[in-house]
Amino acid sequence: MNKVGVRAIMHDIQEVLNSDPSKYINLSAGNPTLLPEVYKMWEDSLSNILNNGELGNIVSKYGSSYGTYELIDCIREYFYNNYDVKLERENILITSGSQNLFFLALNSFCGTNDKNDLTRALIPMLPDYAGYSGVALEKNIIEGIPPLITKIDNHTFRYELDKESFLERVMENRDIGAMVLSRPNNPCGNVLSEKDILFISNVCSELNIPLLIDSAYAPPFPAINFVDMNPILTDNIVHCMSVSKAGLPGERIGIAIGKPQYIKVMEAFQSNISIHSSRLGQRMVADSLQNGQLPFISVKYIREHYKQKYLTLKKALTIFMPDDIPWFLHCAEGSLFSWLWLENLPLEDKEFYNKLKEQNLIVVPGNSFFHDSYAVSMHARECIRISLTATDDDIMRGIEILSNVTKECYKESISISTS
Amino acid sequence: MNKVGVRAIMHDIQEVLNSDPSKYINLSAGNPTLLPEVYKMWEDSLSNILNNGELGNIVSKYGSSYGTYELIDCIREYFYNNYDVKLERENILITSGSQNLFFLALNSFCGTNDKNDLTRALIPMLPDYAGYSGVALEKNIIEGIPPLITKIDNHTFRYELDKESFLERVMENRDIGAMVLSRPNNPCGNVLSEKDILFISNVCSELNIPLLIDSAYAPPFPAINFVDMNPILTDNIVHCMSVSKAGLPGERIGIAIGKPQYIKVMEAFQSNISIHSSRLGQRMVADSLQNGQLPFISVKYIREHYKQKYLTLKKALTIFMPDDIPWFLHCAEGSLFSWLWLENLPLEDKEFYNKLKEQNLIVVPGNSFFHDSYAVSMHARECIRISLTATDDDIMRGIEILSNVTKECYKESISISTS
Repeated sequence: MNKVGVRAIMHDIQEVLNSDPSKYINLSAGNPTLLPEVYKMWEDSLSNILNNGELGNIVSKYGSSYGTYELIDCIREYFYNNYDVKLERENILITSGSQNLFFLALNSFCGTNDKNDLTRALIPMLPDYAGYSGVALEKNIIEGIPPLITKIDNHTFRYELDKESFLERVMENRDIGAMVLSRPNNPCGNVLSEKDILFISNVCSELNIPLLIDSAYAPPFPAINFVDMNPILTDNIVHCMSVSKAGLPGERIGIAIGKPQYIKVMEAFQSNISIHSSRLGQRMVADSLQNGQLPFISVKYIREHYKQKYLTLKKALTIFMPDDIPWFLHCAEGSLFSWLWLENLPLEDKEFYNKLKEQNLIVVPGNSFFHDSYAVSMHARECIRISLTATDDDIMRGIEILSNVTKECYKESISISTS
Repeated sequence: MNKVGVRAIMHDIQEVLNSDPSKYINLSAGNPTLLPEVYKMWEDSLSNILNNGELGNIVSKYGSSYGTYELIDCIREYFYNNYDVKLERENILITSGSQNLFFLALNSFCGTNDKNDLTRALIPMLPDYAGYSGVALEKNIIEGIPPLITKIDNHTFRYELDKESFLERVMENRDIGAMVLSRPNNPCGNVLSEKDILFISNVCSELNIPLLIDSAYAPPFPAINFVDMNPILTDNIVHCMSVSKAGLPGERIGIAIGKPQYIKVMEAFQSNISIHSSRLGQRMVADSLQNGQLPFISVKYIREHYKQKYLTLKKALTIFMPDDIPWFLHCAEGSLFSWLWLENLPLEDKEFYNKLKEQNLIVVPGNSFFHDSYAVSMHARECIRISLTATDDDIMRGIEILSNVTKECYKESISISTS
């Protein structure tokens, strides 16, 4: 596989950062910040396992490809107590992380079938996680609908679901095998409303296909949502959770909740390709769900941490960015990223990325989050993703650099166009 | 994916055992026995991690898709000190277990390519691990060469590589993308000689394809070999290791060693489908390699345990099995299984499995280890796999049942044929 899209960029970023880590201000990271309270929670959980003498049974046995009953039952209990949702064991699958979950799902429900027809995965509203294109085993599987853009004020905007274009595409060709979206959204921090989700879910229901909702930033953990939201479970939704942003990315634990018909297919696939995910990681998650720490720490520390980072970023932009340049920050509704749109940016996002890199600032150019279907549009090349995982100081210094480079670019363009 | 072959059987076995675990004697298990010394090694290793305050850096960070440098460097050091082999970091990939390793490898090197040609994986000598068929994303990928059968004495036999048929198949059609074999072999305990491996490797070299050697039972860990053997590394061999049989199946850690050209392809695939394997598991393995415990415990306790179990099994067969029935045990050269051939067994292995099940004994029918290419042959239906993971008592009682059912089957057949 060649490195394309976000993988090529990520590879470049990794090489740049490895070459001289202290030289650069890194506002590109997807690695969650390690908070002391979060660290302590996982440390406590591992100590419990050791002290209880349970280790042998956990690490020295193969387990079910659905995941451990212990973790599955903890999730059932949590959803029953907190969302009044009754789940059976058959509704739940533990995977080797969220990336792996989407690998299992997208390749189970999309791709070339026995009749040689290609079914695709549709993203109802772009931009969305670039990795979805990466997990598809076949080319041209992921397709997305461009968003509507609403300017909220001088420097704030929000994407909205373009229902009309969405329905048009769905009707045009009956080749959609699944829909997929992240909520809160990576990269832009948008949270699609419950109304929008039910609208999309209804369409999926009519097509008899699953709607995969990537909830890697959603409540109950890591709960990096700044607006009210709850898990939405309909008959067609596969609700996909991750523990990575709650401080456990190293253990690769993902959770899929959906109807047995969907879960079963993914389980069979998982049992063939990796048997099951880390049982030690599963035990740690079960432990911290049972004692309530995971959702508690998520709301109290993780959410607050990123909310505060967002406020720092906003302050930095207000201080450093010139008011006469049309910059717009997407409404901060959740996730650990901010998304900046530089309207009429006179150069492409990747050139802009390189100019920032020359000044020792690393961000992620926005283009690849629009996947192939919209990546060529003007708007897709005017956006960058800024990570909220940096220190306040790095955010301030980073945005100062960003501002200087931005001014330079717009100035050059004006002088070129008037010369 | 439908449950076929060994998956269907394994599913049946699981259901039977779950229905009333105490009722059955289970000689089917692939779950390694949990030995106290092995358990203590992993417990010590986890305690070290906790005591050193390293946990946060391990579980709360994403890592490289090649695996942690720490574990990779430990493996390099071990191979340099013990086998005089100099490995670079680029020669090593840590995967989410051995099953996952073969998923990455077989689907990277075999399958339908851009020109719409199907390349297959060839097993030089059947029987071999049924899971290879399970990991292939396309049908009819795995093909195998039937073995030569050599009777050693009245009740012992050994499979030999049929070089002629092997070469014939290779020449016949240039559609082989990789070769794969387990050494020691699951299910039969055969260890192909170094000479045979070099012969196969030379053919692979001429075809410019990798030879994947599944070393899940091999030294240096878990070292379940009863004859002398060492890792063999040529330019075309991808040497594939696992920690599962050394007591860590729950953490899913596999290790591939080969030339960068092969490793790179598998790394790119892994980075897309699961990012990386459990970092806590990787740290535990690095720890127990660094302090020498893993290879030491493997040789001293794990190998000895299964050797002793094999002797118990052999004793049980000698005591209970009638001498006038043509039963043959495959030479015990390694792995945690024994392989019994009942020549001219008057019924198919699956019927035989059902008859044993009726008498509360569970073994694995041998047919699926011959994959599709040879599964229809007479010999493939006359074999069963017996696990060496049971207690001595269960082995004795199990073989007594086996013996009674076997006698019954041969007797019925004689009375039918003479009636």
